[in-house]
Order: sequence, then C-alpha cells, then structure tokens
Amino acid sequence: MTERPYFPIPFSEVRITSPFWRERLEVVLGRTIPSQHRKLDEVGILESLKLPQPPPPLAYPRNSHGFTVQVFWDSDVGKWIEAASYALAHRRDQEIEAKIEAIVDDLRRAQAEDGYLNCWYLGREPERRWTNLRDNHELYCAGHLLEGAIAYYRATGRRRFLDVMERFVDHIGSVFGLGPGQKRGYPGHQEIELALIKLYRLTKDKRRLELAAYFIDERGREPHYFSQEAIARGEDPAGFWAGTYEYNQSHKPVREQTRVVGHAVRGMYMTAAMADLALELGDEGLKRACEALWRDVTATQMYVTGGLGPRETNEGFTEPYDLPNETAYAETCASVALVFWAHRMLHLDLDGGYGDVMELALFNGALSGLSREGTHYFYTNPLESRGQHRRWAWHRCPCCTMNVSRLVASVAGYALSQREDGVAFHLYGGFETTVAIGGVKVALSEASDYPWSGEVRIEIDPERPVDFDLKLRIPAWAVHPSAAIGEEPVALEPTHGYASIRRRWQAGDVVRLDLPMAAERLYAHPFVRMDVGRVALRRGPLVYCVEEADNPGGPVQSLLLPRAAPLAPERRPDLFGGAMTLVAPAKRLAHADGALYATAPPKAEDARLTALPYHLWANREPGSMEVWVAEQQG
Amino acid sequence: MTERPYFPIPFSEVRITSPFWRERLEVVLGRTIPSQHRKLDEVGILESLKLPQPPPPLAYPRNSHGFTVQVFWDSDVGKWIEAASYALAHRRDQEIEAKIEAIVDDLRRAQAEDGYLNCWYLGREPERRWTNLRDNHELYCAGHLLEGAIAYYRATGRRRFLDVMERFVDHIGSVFGLGPGQKRGYPGHQEIELALIKLYRLTKDKRRLELAAYFIDERGREPHYFSQEAIARGEDPAGFWAGTYEYNQSHKPVREQTRVVGHAVRGMYMTAAMADLALELGDEGLKRACEALWRDVTATQMYVTGGLGPRETNEGFTEPYDLPNETAYAETCASVALVFWAHRMLHLDLDGGYGDVMELALFNGALSGLSREGTHYFYTNPLESRGQHRRWAWHRCPCCTMNVSRLVASVAGYALSQREDGVAFHLYGGFETTVAIGGVKVALSEASDYPWSGEVRIEIDPERPVDFDLKLRIPAWAVHPSAAIGEEPVALEPTHGYASIRRRWQAGDVVRLDLPMAAERLYAHPFVRMDVGRVALRRGPLVYCVEEADNPGGPVQSLLLPRAAPLAPERRPDLFGGAMTLVAPAKRLAHADGALYATAPPKAEDARLTALPYHLWANREPGSMEVWVAEQQG
Repeated sequence: MTERPYFPIPFSEVRITSPFWRERLEVVLGRTIPSQHRKLDEVGILESLKLPQPPPPLAYPRNSHGFTVQVFWDSDVGKWIEAASYALAHRRDQEIEAKIEAIVDDLRRAQAEDGYLNCWYLGREPERRWTNLRDNHELYCAGHLLEGAIAYYRATGRRRFLDVMERFVDHIGSVFGLGPGQKRGYPGHQEIELALIKLYRLTKDKRRLELAAYFIDERGREPHYFSQEAIARGEDPAGFWAGTYEYNQSHKPVREQTRVVGHAVRGMYMTAAMADLALELGDEGLKRACEALWRDVTATQMYVTGGLGPRETNEGFTEPYDLPNETAYAETCASVALVFWAHRMLHLDLDGGYGDVMELALFNGALSGLSREGTHYFYTNPLESRGQHRRWAWHRCPCCTMNVSRLVASVAGYALSQREDGVAFHLYGGFETTVAIGGVKVALSEASDYPWSGEVRIEIDPERPVDFDLKLRIPAWAVHPSAAIGEEPVALEPTHGYASIRRRWQAGDVVRLDLPMAAERLYAHPFVRMDVGRVALRRGPLVYCVEEADNPGGPVQSLLLPRAAPLAPERRPDLFGGAMTLVAPAKRLAHADGALYATAPPKAEDARLTALPYHLWANREPGSMEVWVAEQQG
Repeated sequence: MTERPYFPIPFSEVRITSPFWRERLEVVLGRTIPSQHRKLDEVGILESLKLPQPPPPLAYPRNSHGFTVQVFWDSDVGKWIEAASYALAHRRDQEIEAKIEAIVDDLRRAQAEDGYLNCWYLGREPERRWTNLRDNHELYCAGHLLEGAIAYYRATGRRRFLDVMERFVDHIGSVFGLGPGQKRGYPGHQEIELALIKLYRLTKDKRRLELAAYFIDERGREPHYFSQEAIARGEDPAGFWAGTYEYNQSHKPVREQTRVVGHAVRGMYMTAAMADLALELGDEGLKRACEALWRDVTATQMYVTGGLGPRETNEGFTEPYDLPNETAYAETCASVALVFWAHRMLHLDLDGGYGDVMELALFNGALSGLSREGTHYFYTNPLESRGQHRRWAWHRCPCCTMNVSRLVASVAGYALSQREDGVAFHLYGGFETTVAIGGVKVALSEASDYPWSGEVRIEIDPERPVDFDLKLRIPAWAVHPSAAIGEEPVALEPTHGYASIRRRWQAGDVVRLDLPMAAERLYAHPFVRMDVGRVALRRGPLVYCVEEADNPGGPVQSLLLPRAAPLAPERRPDLFGGAMTLVAPAKRLAHADGALYATAPPKAEDARLTALPYHLWANREPGSMEVWVAEQQG
C-alpha cells in the first residue's frame, strides 16, 4: 500500500471476446445454470424454501428425492442466483430471471418478522437459531444469499432480494457484536465476511464493514465462543467432531495465524476477507497476517495445479509438502477461493506473484471442476488417477458446482483493475471495457488467443489524449516477453511482475505484448515426497496432464519422460475445440515376464507421450491420468 | 499331489535354538502374552464372558473401560489362549495356565444347555442367535475359541476347554447343513473352517471335516443365504453396508473364484481352509481353485513385503497392481493368514514358490506387526510414511495383536514337514526335532544365524542308519547355493525350489548348506504405478526399508539410490541386538532456493543411504520411512 491502490473493474463492466472464455461462458449460460436449477428443484432444495410446511424427514433416511436435507441448502440457492446473475450481465434471460424471482418470493415469505432468514431453522427448529454456529452454517448461508442478492441487483437493478437480505443483515448486526446483550459469535464456516464487504462497497453503509471486521477479529479469542456455545447446548466442547479448532481456523486470533490449517475453503474465504479488510481499513496488521499465510500456502501447501488441501477427512490442509496426487482432495471450491484471495491480495500490492497464482488456480485447479459439456463436476481434483475418478452429475454437498459456475460467469471481473491514473491488466483473454481516467473515457480492447497463445493486442481508444499508466502483468512463466506500441518496441522492465507503460495515450494506439509460451518442465521441492523423480509440464498458464485416452497401451504411469526430450506444442482442432497438446518422445516400461517383482529393471521401450491441459481431463472414456510424470534422467 | 504328501511337524514337536526366533519368542512369552491378558481385562473383554450379567452398554457410548463392546470379543479370547498355549509348549507357566483356566470356567458357565456358546448373544440378545451370519461373527468366534481349545489341549493335555468346544461344534453341526430343518448358512467371516479341520486332525472325527467342507462349498450358492437372512430380519439385502458380497467372498461359489477380492483376511482364511480340504479330501477342484487364486494374488496383488489388501474401506483388495505405499492397509492379520495359506499350499505340492511367499510374509508383512519390546502393534503396515504411523498399545479391533503373537509363538510349526520316507525343511533358523522314519528315530538339529546369514548346518542323528530323503528349500533369492555333507560337496539340483538329498543317513552326518544372501534390488511390474522409477532392497528373506532415524537430514523420500551403487551389508551390534543394515552411496535432492516448484531440477548431493529390515521400523523416534526408494538411473 505504498502507492494508491488499484480497484477491480467489476464483471458487469467488462465484456469477453476471446474464443476460450466465450466458449466456457456460453456453456455456463446455456447449460450449467439451467441444469443446476433443475437439480436444485429435483433434489428438494427449492422445495425447502417454501415455508411454512411440515419439515421433511431429516438427514437419514433420504427424502423423496433421494437426497438428504442439509443445513447448507440456503447457500446453494444463494450461489446459484449469484452465478446466474453474473451470466445475466452478459445476456439477459427472462426465463432465468423468472426463476430467481420465484425464489425471492419464497425467501420473502420465509423471512421472520425480525428479519431472520434461514430455511432449515425456520422450518425445522426455529427455537434453536444461533445455537450452533460452529457446525450449522447459518451465517455461511446468510453470506451466500447476500452475495446472490448483490450480484442480482448489480446485474438487473432489481432490489427486492437485496432488501430482504439487508433486513437480515440488520438482524445479524443486532445479534452479534461486542455490545451489551450481544452474542460474541462468528461463523463456523467463514463466508459472510466477504458478502458484508461487498454490501459495504455497494451501499457504503459502514456498519457492514464493521460487522465483517468484528467477525474476523473476534475469531479465535478466548474464552472460545464455540466452546461456550457447546456447553450451552449441554455438550462437551472436547467432543467436537473435527477434533481441533484448527479445522475452522478459530484455534487462535487470525492476526496470530502464520500457517494455513484446517478446512481449506473456510481458510481461503477467511484470508480473502482479511485482505479485503486490510485494504478497506488500511489495516497493516491484517495485511501482514495475509502475507504470512500466503507465503505458507504457496511455498509449502499448494498443488502445482493451484489445488489446495490434500486430505478428505478435514477437507483441508495437513502439513508442509504433504501433497499426495491420487488421493488429493484439492476441492474445486478451494481453488475458486484461492482465486478470490489472490485477486484481493493484488489490490493490496500489485504484485505479479499474486497474479500468477490467481491465473494458475483459475485455469487449472478451479476450471477442472467443470466438465466440457457443463453439466458434470469434480468436487475433488486429484493429480493422478487409475481411472476411478469420474465427474458427478450432482453431489450431496453441491457447493463446488455453483462455485465453479459463478467463477466462470464472473471471470471478466478478475481481468482488470484501475485507479485514478492507471489501468492494470491481470489476465488476458479477450477483455473489453471502458474506464474513466481523469474524466476522460478510455475504451480498452484486449484481443488474444490466450491461453493458447501469449500474443496479446490491446487497443487503447481515449475520447481525447490522456496520460495514464498502463500496467501489464508479465507472468513469471513468460520467457523473454516483449512489447511494442504500433511498430515501436517498448522496453519491458517489469517491477514485481508488472510492466508499466506511462505515456499520453491517443486514439488508435495499439500495444502488442508478446508473452512467449514455452513448454516447460516443473520440478517439485524434494520434500514433496510424492513427486521425487517426477516432472510436471506447463505451457503458459496451463498445467498439463497425461491421460490414457491420448496415450493408450497401459497405465500412463508406466511412461517415462527423458529429461532432455523436446516438448512440442501441437494444436489439435479435433480435441475440445482446438486444445494445444504437448508431444514428446518418451519411454514406456515393459516387464519381460510379467512377474510382480523382479531383480532386473523393466525395459524402457520407445513411446510417444501426449500431454493435455489438466483442466480438460476426464471428459472422455475412463482411464489413468497423471500430472507428475516419471522422469528418465539418463 | 503326484507324490505322497508331506505333513507338517507340529509346533509342539519342534524346539527353537536360533538367536533370532529365540529372542522374538522370549519377548512374546515374557511380555506380549501377559500384557495382552492385562488388556483383555482392562478393556472389558474378560468381563464380557461372565454370564449371566446385565449386558453392558452397547457400542456407543463406550463402556466404563473406554472401549466399545464388540461382537467379535470371544474371538480375541480364543486367540489369546491359542497364542498362550503355543508359548506354553516352549515353557510351562503356572500363572498363564491359571488365567486360561479361569476363562474356561467362565466359558463353561456361559455355555447354553444345547451347547451354544457366544457371550455377545447369550448376554445381550439370546433370541437372535444365528440371525446375522453375514455381519456378526458368531461362527468366526466359534472358530477362534476352538483353535484356542485345540492348542491348549495340545500344549497341556487338559481337555476341559476342548470338551466345551466339542459340545458347541456338535450344536453347530446340528444347526447348519443340507439336512431337513437345517440352516444353509455359512460364516460371514471365514475362520471356523480352519478350526474344524484342526479338530478333525486331532480327533479324527470325520464330521468335523465334513462340516468344514460344507461351509466352504455352500458359500456363494444361490439363492444367497445372506440375502435370505437379511430378508428374514426385515432388511433389504441390497442395503448391505459393504455393497457387494465380494466383500466376504460369497459373490460366487468358491470353486468358480479366480480373483482375490474383498476383505483380505476373510479371503486368506478361506483359501487356507480350501487348501486343507483339498489335501484331506484329495479334492482336485478345490486345489485348482486355490492355485488360480494363488497366482492372482502373488502375481498382481501382493506388496513386496508380503502385505495384502491396499484399501481401508473394505480392509482388502481393489484391483490388480493397485498397491499404494503410504496408504497401504496391508493388515497384519492378512500377512499372518497368507503364511497360513502358503504353509497349506506347500502340503499340496512341495513347491518352493509357496515356501518363498510364506517366508516373505512371515519375516516382513507379519513380523512388522509386533514392536521390538512386544507390547505395541501395527494393525496396518504401510510401505511408506511421513512419520504419522505409530504403533498402537491396543486397538478397538485387537485381532492383529493376537494374530502376530500366535504366529510368532508357533513359528516352529512352519519349519518342517515329513512323510514316511522324507523330511523337508521349509524354514531355517535353529529348529530341532525328532522324527520317526520307518520306525527309526532321527534327531534333526538345524543351526544357523538366519535370517542374517544363509550358512546353515544340519546335524542328522538317527538311532541307526536309515534311508530317507532330506528336502531342503532353496529360496529363489539364493544366488549360487551350495551344500556339502561333511567335507564332501553335494550337487544341489533343486526341483520346484527344493533340493533333495536321498541317502542312507548315519549318526554324525552333518549337512552344510550355504544360501548366499546377496543384497539385491527389486523392481515392480511397471503397472504398479506407485513404484515406477523406484527400487526396493532385499537381502535373503528380509525386505528392507529406509527410515529417517538412520538417515537424518530431511524426509527419506528425497534420497535417490543410483542404479549402480553397491549395497554393502553392515552388521550393527548396536541396533536391535545386531541387525544387518544395507549401506550404499546415494544422493539426496536439495532445492536451490526453497521454492515449491521450479523449472530447474533439484540438485542431487552426495549422501549415504542406510536401509533397515522392514520389520524393525517404527521402533525408534517418529520419522519418514519408505520401502520403495527413488532410483537414479543415470
């Protein structure tokens, strides 16, 4: 925060023109959003909003739809509305809007006199509201509904839903806080903090920011709220099923936390909110805590795909360098949340390190969560498979389905930022917007075939000549990047990953930026025991994998990639609309006699290895897959 | 069965003189057996035998001892008596015998009028006996109690317990079978078949053999007994929690089974019983089924340690070549059961392939289950660890604790077999016995420092000169084995892994057998995806591992063993009473800048690798461990 900060240009102000994101967006608009609504209907989630009604049967046995009622269902509704609203910003759709309006009708009817709104509690045990923040997701659901309401308002200007949610937020603000008679609680699953900050940015109502800051700062204080709450319920706090408050990052005050622990999505939502608060409040302490946690996660606990959280039991972190591939949990939501956090860190410091991780998680760990046809999902994103991993049409806990669709539908919101005297490009891929610089309207049009090519063309079209600083993110993977304005080369001297071109811009100015995408090998820190002797492949922002569909003849794990083998990019018009593969001469191990164990090493026979962008895997017939390929060093 | 079969020389007829097994035996006698009795007492298992009494609280919440009551507790009592009885054969012990007698008193009191005996059902729900063979372990418990009674009788000659159990077996024989009014059931957890065959061998009562054969042959027939039984309980058979009858190998008749599936211990107890029946009944069909299953497990589903069953959820098998190291289940009981099965296969065909696997599972996958000091256990036996695996003092399901102690206490019973005209050595390690060959008493005394050295000396001392065939197992790992009688070299021309020395033996004959133990590298079939690019180390019967305690400086997984590096055996008097380590010049990967991912490969710095026999791991401070070491091929 040494310079005046940049602020993101919101999704609603940015158009997408590139083939890559346009295609994903059309799939989400045309197939994902409608099919998710059908699922919300089929499994009983929409029905659960229709109060009053006799409560459906509890978790076990299943309800008539074959799904079990869940305390987090309100959040899925909120996330679907949010994703749909982002989509509506690209193309209005009467049918989708009517569906949202019907949900808003139900929520209005369900809301209690005092503003409280949670369909699980209102329908099932209204007298027990706010008695189990640790486990029961009330504040989390409120956060997601609020984000949905804000996105819907931004996309359509309709504020009925927002009114409902502001009443609920008023109620929450009256219940929680440091004042007399207030509960000193905070969410077991962080999320509402992000929503409250968004609400503050929309309405400028300071109380929302203060409530978010309260939730963050109260977290982990002693006496521990979740313990007191458990005692009040007649339970032994030591009986907490997760075993430790690290699970929800309330083991100590957030400013004292230096290691990412526990449930990955909760942790990333929390750090994203901390970064937002650090910016809004100029809070250096929160910023330093964010930086320490960022270093920890990116230097010791992040998959090469931008996946987070290796373990299923806590859906989260274990310990440094513990990054198993086949059993990786690496929840889609966690990579989505890492995009959120990285984006916010960028606005604390315009540092390409944040931009690189944002791009990595977006194009790999997060995008892999959505199938090509847009109706199947990965909840977990392993980096290796024997073919047992298949995409889900739905999930008992469908959080990831709508998290990936809301990210894709809002990807334009991650591309650009501005401040009074500057515009910054974080992502490339066909983004257009118009900004005002010192009162001058400047149209910006970036065109590229990103992520397949790093050749970027940016047209700058101010109403009249105007001085400003064009900041261009130069990814760390770009080898020998170069740029020109018109035919004139420009020296790129990136500072912290951003090149800065400060000049008087005129109508017709064109910046050509070349970010050469070399196919590269990546090696993990040797403490990542699973990846010793293995190599991963990357080209530009994309991490690759080797899938059996492209490499028939046995499990892909029997392939060896010689250290010196050239990696040839090969565009494949027949593959997923033109994916770039990487092809290399390789070896395949073959056993002489088929014995399970032998004293002679297996023979390495000549083979050809074809690697596919990781986010595209598991869209064809089942088969083995790996990101980390055994390397032949000799 | 082309030749007349060999029969095992029972544990009670063989004395152990070697330092290796003598030490393990003393630990089991002096520490394991007494401490297990204390545990049986502490956790409430002994109390559960004292009927009638008000039933203790059910599974959840825990009983006053902090442990949950379990349907399989009778089996733990049976196994403890069995293990203790094997120990008593080496050294009688009044205190242990008094404890067994007290248990027998309780069991006699508990037994129902009609002979039925199961303390869970008798104490808790006597009206529901034999209503859930699929899940509730009644026949399994009966089997283990019966094995305990037989071992106790063999060790002491006391038959009170055996009488109780024969009454129970009479009852079981009246309840189950093909006759009118009988239930066509069979155990959900195989075990009683083995016990019934032992009882037949002791008493020659053919009914016992027939009942075992009935249980084996009825298994998996349609209509499926477990389905009918579930319907009779008012349950939907499709709701079987394990999902498939493969879990307990009742998915099809046993003679049609060609792939090992499901729960590994159940499967191995079943195949062991099938081999016994094939021998006793001369049943070629059962023999062929055993051979097919043997090929499947040893060629595609066995860890290099002789561990079996990679997956926790079914405690068993998944699919060919699926042998993950760090998450290996490889239950101690499964390796113990593999020893049982291999031993029985040896008596169908004297084939060293069976002997090799028996030795492998015994010295590695099974023996690793017992700590050096004899009071801590591994239930699962992973082949890799980051240090999170520690031995248990006890387990909710303590099956493995007494399985490993009964195996160690009875190891003498696996060493030798005989028939009218021959004696066969399967194991070496200081075994002495006296056999009768054609009416002539022959004392045999084998002395060696096995498994540390393959120099074996066998003294043969017949009362008077006698012709017989001395069969010596020549392990597949032995490179250039040789032998001499006195000073006279003998040509070893092993057939199916056994060398045969047929001659007239005289008092004072000494056979010197040299089985050179070279330190060797093992490579897995390339379809074992986890082991590609990795190498395991073996010397003689012992598989080695690399443990952090011997290789400080970071996780052992960052070590590389060059393909050509010499492996030097190094005897370590300071280590576990003189273990043989393997030492090699090696490399350790070091990262230049500590980044999690880098485009430059990590540097390989000179290091020294020390490998320890796998069965000795996790007896010092926690740390990383691996059996499969990354190989530097260059």
